Amino acid sequence: MSDSQRELTDTLDIKYDDKGLVPAIVQDQSTGRILMMGWMNEAALKQTLATKLATFYSRSRDKMWVKGESSGHVQKVLEARVDCDQDVVLLLCESHGPCCHVGYTSCFYRTTDAVGHLTVTDEKAFDPDAVYKK
Amino acid sequence: MSDSQRELTDTLDIKYDDKGLVPAIVQDQSTGRILMMGWMNEAALKQTLATKLATFYSRSRDKMWVKGESSGHVQKVLEARVDCDQDVVLLLCESHGPCCHVGYTSCFYRTTDAVGHLTVTDEKAFDPDAVYKK
Repeated sequence: MSDSQRELTDTLDIKYDDKGLVPAIVQDQSTGRILMMGWMNEAALKQTLATKLATFYSRSRDKMWVKGESSGHVQKVLEARVDCDQDVVLLLCESHGPCCHVGYTSCFYRTTDAVGHLTVTDEKAFDPDAVYKK
Repeated sequence: MSDSQRELTDTLDIKYDDKGLVPAIVQDQSTGRILMMGWMNEAALKQTLATKLATFYSRSRDKMWVKGESSGHVQKVLEARVDCDQDVVLLLCESHGPCCHVGYTSCFYRTTDAVGHLTVTDEKAFDPDAVYKK
């Protein structure tokens, strides 16, 4: 399918990149917050749509993983969207626990100024060290 | 910088991919809607932070472009965030006109069901053909 066909079709036909992956944005449906962005291969997207649990492909570990599988902090998918040329996925989710492994609700916990100085603008939802020590 | 250093530092140090690019999500600050995702190289990010106008790098045209430069539908950047390992940028913007070239407010105008059937769930903000004919 061409880009313009992808804009008009009623059939999902994701344009995967040269590694067979597509970026997937996770948004909390109740708060509107962007929680994270991960990568999916075709199998991870299929599993996400079938199970309604956000499932990604880890590039570093070279395997699929269900978000929250070990921590319990799953993202339940309420709605899945695609962009015009179908090279980005957006998941509207119900969050169960903080999304970021660093301890924040969202991975986007820092704001940059014009010259690249970062400020933490979110409060930690939990202390990851305390959790890891359990 | 390692991933864990990137999580804690107060210095912007984007982890660009093997093509020198980073994905940038555009969110409307007033409505919370995700409008689009584009790609930035280092120069585009620098220009975005300096001018407060969302500026991307077009992979197909191999050049930088200011969103809305020709249509007037610019995205004024109110806040720029980075994720934990600094490989995704999030722009909180004030929208001037619809974001998607197809005519919708957001590029994410379609929802997929579990088997890949797409439904248009947004109304068009304008008729792009009418605009292009002007």
